[in-house]
Amino acid sequence: MKTYAEMNEQELFALKAELDEQFKTEETKGHSLNMARGKPGVSQLSLSMPMLNVINIDSDMHTLLGNDTRNYGDWDGIGECRYLLADMMQVKKDNVVICGNSSLNIMYDTVARSMALGVNGSTPWSRLKKVKFLCPVPGYDRHFKITELFGIEMINIPMDEHGPDMDLVEAYVNGDDSVKGIWCVPKYSNPTGITYSDEVVRRFANLKPKAEDFRIFWDNAYCIHHIYDEIHDEILNILEECEKAGNPNMVYMFASTSKVSFPGSGVSAIATSLENMEYLKTCMTTQIIGHDKINQLRHVRFFKNIDGLNAHMKKHADILRPKFEAVLEVLESELSGAGIGTWVKPRGGYFISFDAMPGCAKAIVEYCKKLGVVLTGAGATYPYGKDPLDSNIRIAPSFPTPEEMFLATKIFVLCVKLAAAEKLLGEMGDAAAE
Amino acid sequence: MKTYAEMNEQELFALKAELDEQFKTEETKGHSLNMARGKPGVSQLSLSMPMLNVINIDSDMHTLLGNDTRNYGDWDGIGECRYLLADMMQVKKDNVVICGNSSLNIMYDTVARSMALGVNGSTPWSRLKKVKFLCPVPGYDRHFKITELFGIEMINIPMDEHGPDMDLVEAYVNGDDSVKGIWCVPKYSNPTGITYSDEVVRRFANLKPKAEDFRIFWDNAYCIHHIYDEIHDEILNILEECEKAGNPNMVYMFASTSKVSFPGSGVSAIATSLENMEYLKTCMTTQIIGHDKINQLRHVRFFKNIDGLNAHMKKHADILRPKFEAVLEVLESELSGAGIGTWVKPRGGYFISFDAMPGCAKAIVEYCKKLGVVLTGAGATYPYGKDPLDSNIRIAPSFPTPEEMFLATKIFVLCVKLAAAEKLLGEMGDAAAE
Repeated sequence: MKTYAEMNEQELFALKAELDEQFKTEETKGHSLNMARGKPGVSQLSLSMPMLNVINIDSDMHTLLGNDTRNYGDWDGIGECRYLLADMMQVKKDNVVICGNSSLNIMYDTVARSMALGVNGSTPWSRLKKVKFLCPVPGYDRHFKITELFGIEMINIPMDEHGPDMDLVEAYVNGDDSVKGIWCVPKYSNPTGITYSDEVVRRFANLKPKAEDFRIFWDNAYCIHHIYDEIHDEILNILEECEKAGNPNMVYMFASTSKVSFPGSGVSAIATSLENMEYLKTCMTTQIIGHDKINQLRHVRFFKNIDGLNAHMKKHADILRPKFEAVLEVLESELSGAGIGTWVKPRGGYFISFDAMPGCAKAIVEYCKKLGVVLTGAGATYPYGKDPLDSNIRIAPSFPTPEEMFLATKIFVLCVKLAAAEKLLGEMGDAAAE
Repeated sequence: MKTYAEMNEQELFALKAELDEQFKTEETKGHSLNMARGKPGVSQLSLSMPMLNVINIDSDMHTLLGNDTRNYGDWDGIGECRYLLADMMQVKKDNVVICGNSSLNIMYDTVARSMALGVNGSTPWSRLKKVKFLCPVPGYDRHFKITELFGIEMINIPMDEHGPDMDLVEAYVNGDDSVKGIWCVPKYSNPTGITYSDEVVRRFANLKPKAEDFRIFWDNAYCIHHIYDEIHDEILNILEECEKAGNPNMVYMFASTSKVSFPGSGVSAIATSLENMEYLKTCMTTQIIGHDKINQLRHVRFFKNIDGLNAHMKKHADILRPKFEAVLEVLESELSGAGIGTWVKPRGGYFISFDAMPGCAKAIVEYCKKLGVVLTGAGATYPYGKDPLDSNIRIAPSFPTPEEMFLATKIFVLCVKLAAAEKLLGEMGDAAAE
């Protein structure tokens, strides 16, 4: 099979004519499909419905230590919930503070606090001339929106299958004291699905930041979100590695049960060193008297322990796997060998990252929209929404059914092909005109 | 009856000897009573237990508009909950954003956002040399802790039975552009229990702030928290009054159901002008995807509407009233005419504010502690914990039983008397030594 780049103009014209026909046919069908956001599907949500019966009018509302979860108190969360999320994040309970329903909110708060108050007593970032964050790309759009809102300059760091380019990370962090942070989704990364290698994690832990208030924002969003039973990615414990390397305070880890129980009605947590916790305590006890302890109790009574969480996530995996496989099957059968797109088969998380032929991503998203298939906007996986190659597209297979994902991906590959053929023909036209 | 100040030294010595005896007797009893924090009592919490059954495995989890409350979405809250809290706050639904479990957290966020980002595009407060807040005193300690954390200078504004001293407020706000905010608990004020008069509210609305980013922080914490059936304080709608006065953006109103349903597991809201909302939306949609909509649904399905809220609060009042009356009865019978303390009989809210003879508050709190009665620290109702007269003590009657409150207040008045007698004797000694 020829790749698209190997075709001559005549072959490409013939191909484009054929694709145009297919496009017209699909256009008449009035599709309404969405591969845009990483939302759990309805059958996943149903798995957690029994949780809503666990706390009821007859429940003992007290924690194991005897505190009434219905009243004020326990700013850092009830002990049993701290244990549960500590096990989920593979850290120690004493390093964990349970917060509200959203880990994104904790990350925002952490940046906001650093802007207004500094980090453990350092100069508030908002008083500095320049504050920079490193952004492994492609990455999570909502991370980038936070730093953008606060006027923090974002620097793209390329990712490969092992994680971010650590040569570049080290050069920036160790050499520039205006670099104050880096956004990471280290396991089943959003969107590439890869997990940072042990070497990458160790190199993170052994950074020698020029800025003492540099922090790694380690968004452990998909820590137990495997897709396959038999293969689970493992990742080194960054808190332990940082401690070993003499950098105990360098990392904030975040996680939540948004994609375990209910998005918006789960519990979230931050894990960090005891010294960082001391400073957090000062600020957080001013911010709030306490988070929703009844919901913490609901989670603990339903999941009981890490085994309960894992058993629940196995059920999620059984629902998600066919959706991911529907996408991968179509990509594989339609695009293998065509040289117009690459993708990684993820073993967990919520996304499949697709790299189209450079200069095609926007066109693909636009074509898909015309055919009734909504994709995350091209560029969204890059800071400022600007993908320098106009190549990356994030596919979110979780919400639709496997059948819908199959159909949506069929339409997606049609648009990928069409955009590639047009790109190549355009280049030939340009070359002829010169 | 003679006031303490009218007694001669001999009378005071005799009195003190008697009080010392009583003190010793109480000391042997090993009391363990707490009048410190405004926590609902267990019987109040029990009123809301049926709410926990309202949402269960069989519930339709969709909003009236058909959105699934279990999934992401609705950053500003589900419509029916916005209506419910709008009615509670006596504002319009379109001016309301439902947030998490804590209105204190919204206030903190609002200050933090103003520090780091400014107000609707103004210079971030953290970049200014000086930022000041006006603090009507006595007031709510947790308000003052927020502004203290952010290094905002706090200025005491005396309160009387109509509200803050508006001559002073006008002089500061209209004359000093570093004055950026004022903390208010306008209804059943914490701790004095008074409600701002119509004139005070109108003077607030008609301020002509020198700083365009000046905002009134209107903590409507006790909007439906009446103690008596027959007498409800009413307050003018500050949003409407500000609009009438041409100052539509000057106020943020806050409220929550922390003392309606469950502290820590309620829902909170901010109400403000549509222009302020636009800016909040930019920031809040970066901060979080959405708050806990299942809990919002739980509240709406349980309370149904403002009538449901009011009926529920009547039950709270029935529980709270005897506790307040126990305190007032003892104060009245033991201290009337003694000239060593004043208090206001509140018609709502959570506190009774007691003004001891100047220079006595710390001593009273200390004596109470020795007798096993915990009070809010003296000075807590003032910025920086510094009551310039060392006079104000906040009594929180809500958590103990009426019998416990009766007993605790008996001990309290004993300590008030003892501190006053010692104070006067000390002054006589000083005068004699001169």
